[in-house]
Amino acid sequence: MVTSISVATRSPGLHEITGDIQAAVVDSGVVEGLCTVMVQHTSASLTIQENADPSARRDLEAWLSRLVTENDPLYTHTDEGPDDMPSHIKAALTATTLSIPVASGRLCLGTWQGVYLWEHRRRGSLRRCVVHIGG
Amino acid sequence: MVTSISVATRSPGLHEITGDIQAAVVDSGVVEGLCTVMVQHTSASLTIQENADPSARRDLEAWLSRLVTENDPLYTHTDEGPDDMPSHIKAALTATTLSIPVASGRLCLGTWQGVYLWEHRRRGSLRRCVVHIGG
Amino acid sequence: MVTSISVATRSPGLHEITGDIQAAVVDSGVVEGLCTVMVQHTSASLTIQENADPSARRDLEAWLSRLVTENDPLYTHTDEGPDDMPSHIKAALTATTLSIPVASGRLCLGTWQGVYLWEHRRRGSLRRCVVHIGG
Repeated sequence: MVTSISVATRSPGLHEITGDIQAAVVDSGVVEGLCTVMVQHTSASLTIQENADPSARRDLEAWLSRLVTENDPLYTHTDEGPDDMPSHIKAALTATTLSIPVASGRLCLGTWQGVYLWEHRRRGSLRRCVVHIGG
Repeated sequence: MVTSISVATRSPGLHEITGDIQAAVVDSGVVEGLCTVMVQHTSASLTIQENADPSARRDLEAWLSRLVTENDPLYTHTDEGPDDMPSHIKAALTATTLSIPVASGRLCLGTWQGVYLWEHRRRGSLRRCVVHIGG
Repeated sequence: MVTSISVATRSPGLHEITGDIQAAVVDSGVVEGLCTVMVQHTSASLTIQENADPSARRDLEAWLSRLVTENDPLYTHTDEGPDDMPSHIKAALTATTLSIPVASGRLCLGTWQGVYLWEHRRRGSLRRCVVHIGG
């Protein structure tokens, strides 16, 4: 089954989508199989990260934004704003697609793992992920 | 179906392979499913990036090459040339495998997304990707 | 088929799991298909890297540990020790899931490719990967 989920982001950083993906797995009726998520944008990405303490996710965002700065004189691709080229670089350094095994109708995530859409643009956007669930 | 595609690269940077992968999907006859691409090298990688403005891809290459420099005194793995160890690091920081949902016989890419083989060696090479397409 | 493999790590760096995954493929009986591996932790990750010269893997670990330092004043997530937040960042920059095509009952890896669990905590741990193998 191929379906999609949408996430309205309003700021940079990690937005949890574990519940949306798990709901798609339930809808598919697949009990054992594989669930693949792909974000359809190049200025947002995906990550599986700690779901317990929000400080870990804030530090991740802060660390990556310090590594990949705005207004770097190296950039020539600047027409879409100072946060556009850093967004593409951040997306390349993280993940665009993730594949998660499914067993007993549930995503086989570890105890402390959540799935996140990582918004890299300052103002966010309506982000779409395509989800494939196979038996 | 498992098949492969080959790309002859002659310089570092992003080489588009979207058309080759889409052609493999058509050949497979799969209408709805999942297409997985894996690059069979450790000094080249894969990325899904903006397909519109080539300046974004040039900036990506320039940024990553500034982060991961040649002739870093940290390197001990130097027998295969000054561009070898940086290539392995760049591959580790980007993607070796990508899985893209397929619907209506087409890769479910976003409007501005293309699939790229990212060459990290100075002189390029004949690069091979294995492609799995499942229904 | 969904199964799992466990790896006891005692130090940071790359621990090869190619043999364990290939054994799971043989057990599954799948001759042509796709094998997906997901690490169930957020302070360890996965990578496909050069399997020939161990110096390449040591340099990878050294380079990433120099980029992502302990005791960075940026970190606020410090309760779990000085190596915890760097581990999450390193995991985000590498891979949590990998999908490898299977043909003739074998992982379609390139000649010089091995699959590695990348331990990021100082003392290591018992790490678990979930493996899905589909026909």
